[in-house]
Amino acid sequence: MLRRSLVTLMTDFGAESVYVAEMKAVIFALAPEAKVIDLSHSIKPYDIGQAERFLRRVAFLYPRGAVHTVVVDPGVGSERKPVALCVRGHYFVGPDNGIFSAFAQMDGAKVIHLDRSEFFRDGVSNTFHGRDIFAPIAARLATGMLLEGLGSTYELSASLGRKGPREEGKFIKGDIVDVDRFGNLITNIPAILAPEDGEVTIGEQRAEWVKYYGEGEKGKLLVLEGSDGFVELALKEGSAAEFLDYPNISEVSIRKA
Amino acid sequence: MLRRSLVTLMTDFGAESVYVAEMKAVIFALAPEAKVIDLSHSIKPYDIGQAERFLRRVAFLYPRGAVHTVVVDPGVGSERKPVALCVRGHYFVGPDNGIFSAFAQMDGAKVIHLDRSEFFRDGVSNTFHGRDIFAPIAARLATGMLLEGLGSTYELSASLGRKGPREEGKFIKGDIVDVDRFGNLITNIPAILAPEDGEVTIGEQRAEWVKYYGEGEKGKLLVLEGSDGFVELALKEGSAAEFLDYPNISEVSIRKA
Amino acid sequence: MLRRSLVTLMTDFGAESVYVAEMKAVIFALAPEAKVIDLSHSIKPYDIGQAERFLRRVAFLYPRGAVHTVVVDPGVGSERKPVALCVRGHYFVGPDNGIFSAFAQMDGAKVIHLDRSEFFRDGVSNTFHGRDIFAPIAARLATGMLLEGLGSTYELSASLGRKGPREEGKFIKGDIVDVDRFGNLITNIPAILAPEDGEVTIGEQRAEWVKYYGEGEKGKLLVLEGSDGFVELALKEGSAAEFLDYPNISEVSIRKA
Repeated sequence: MLRRSLVTLMTDFGAESVYVAEMKAVIFALAPEAKVIDLSHSIKPYDIGQAERFLRRVAFLYPRGAVHTVVVDPGVGSERKPVALCVRGHYFVGPDNGIFSAFAQMDGAKVIHLDRSEFFRDGVSNTFHGRDIFAPIAARLATGMLLEGLGSTYELSASLGRKGPREEGKFIKGDIVDVDRFGNLITNIPAILAPEDGEVTIGEQRAEWVKYYGEGEKGKLLVLEGSDGFVELALKEGSAAEFLDYPNISEVSIRKA
Repeated sequence: MLRRSLVTLMTDFGAESVYVAEMKAVIFALAPEAKVIDLSHSIKPYDIGQAERFLRRVAFLYPRGAVHTVVVDPGVGSERKPVALCVRGHYFVGPDNGIFSAFAQMDGAKVIHLDRSEFFRDGVSNTFHGRDIFAPIAARLATGMLLEGLGSTYELSASLGRKGPREEGKFIKGDIVDVDRFGNLITNIPAILAPEDGEVTIGEQRAEWVKYYGEGEKGKLLVLEGSDGFVELALKEGSAAEFLDYPNISEVSIRKA
Repeated sequence: MLRRSLVTLMTDFGAESVYVAEMKAVIFALAPEAKVIDLSHSIKPYDIGQAERFLRRVAFLYPRGAVHTVVVDPGVGSERKPVALCVRGHYFVGPDNGIFSAFAQMDGAKVIHLDRSEFFRDGVSNTFHGRDIFAPIAARLATGMLLEGLGSTYELSASLGRKGPREEGKFIKGDIVDVDRFGNLITNIPAILAPEDGEVTIGEQRAEWVKYYGEGEKGKLLVLEGSDGFVELALKEGSAAEFLDYPNISEVSIRKA
């Protein structure tokens, strides 16, 4: 099996929507040996930031040669460009909307403007480039076509502002950026920046540092290093999101001294 | 890999339900090389019309040899017949409930009544033919068995009434038949029938013709050719479904002159 | 293809969550030929009982050699042990939390404590053993590694209390344990124990024995043998769950004489 036969899909089309079924059909028609993996189709509609965080978290865990197809595309049909990238042996396909900007800045990244319509589906629609442009390109990469053959060298025009943590006097301040199914709240503060046992407050609440979710007493607000290396809030046997009334409250403050 | 090794599943069992996991188990036990693709398990319970529109939209995009297994089966256990079809090299398996009627009418379509129980699972239940009849038959087709060997020639008895657009004086009238996750409303009016710039009204609202979703101003009701070739309503940066109070309103009218 | 290349996943992480995408990445990085099947990621958070019923229902339908990876793991990071089992040629990987206890009691079952960290991911987190321990172990089994090489012989410590049906005078009594998308209610009473035509009552309601869902008149409460061999309640063209106000009511009583 070709090493590039793994194609992942991430969209905001909704799980099991007809649009996803169409993209897969196009991929299998062009690359019958492809293995298609759904990363998520439940990205919040148009939420490019969420898609980018998801992608950064998982992309390099996949084996080199995987083709990550990311279609969160409010600008479909407009002037925004279709692009493909190769970064450290990993491939990315989708609209130039900022999702790929962090990858494009990495050493040795190659970016291509997909301007050769002979590799698209015949009769490209104005409303569904996931099916008509990105799925066929992902399929062609999966069958071993060279990135360079699919278009011209390009520089991404869109980039994504990303809010990081900030220092304010004796405090490191950051924000909750994601919530998972358990109500755990993931912040944008790298755990490595958080002083050991530094007092953590969210609104009026204080959280207690633990190593894992099962520690401490029921109903207690916990803070720990999440599995992606960022500071995370949890509630033992409960939902931190509900407890803290997220998203109404989202700033997290850690005392340094 | 055998060209027929692709098996798709469409049901109303609910995503990730135990019923789907059972069907896949039966398929892999009989056809370990099969590639199983979930089209959707979120079809509205018993909604044969929705399943049929979904299937018509995607089936022929899949490569020839794909086996489409469609189990929306309110009549399971009753006299309704289990069937399999081959149409232009594409295979279909499921109950004779009307979903396949449009395919059966195509040139060269072959329809088989699945009346050879030696190809079913031992001990067929009265309540789950997806697992006991349709999954094993799909698996056998995936391993290369001939359609003709699985039963006797048959004519479908069920057929699906489908409401199309209609002419009323100076107007073409049609109906909204599907809504997607973005709140876009898909009608049953082929875009090719819609006069260019013909005035479009839904209830009291007028929609403005555009080429793609991003056109026009925010909050404006748009009408465009959807990616399946039908007239579609959208709201720029919003949900047309909410804006129009769908499904309370569903008739669309296009002025011809 | 190796017979053990089939890896199934069951978690309470939520469908299409980033955690599932990470587990798949780790599996494909170690076992590029693996075929990964999602059983369900919609297990109710921490609901070990639901996961166990799901697993018992489907595991042995999958072909021998399948590796069932089951991560419902409220105790992640604590002292609970990571384990792997081989039972009748089927493999199981996950935390020792009771889900596997019924399998471990079967003839010839082998249970291993996964205590060889060289087979884990580097830098195991305290919060996500699905990615850091169980996915790598499942991948290694999928590539053909021997169970015995992955750790030491072990006896499961956790076991799951399971409430079965009970006899009370002239009645067999049991409980509703699951509800499906159609509102059908699945009990823990094996249909083989239910006397033919024995009067069935749930609260104030009586149900009528039928062979399949489509029998009887609309709106009538039905009782039948479900596809897993247990007594099941259904409402013709409706939801038995709504009709009976489940889960407020859950005891089912069958008269023996």
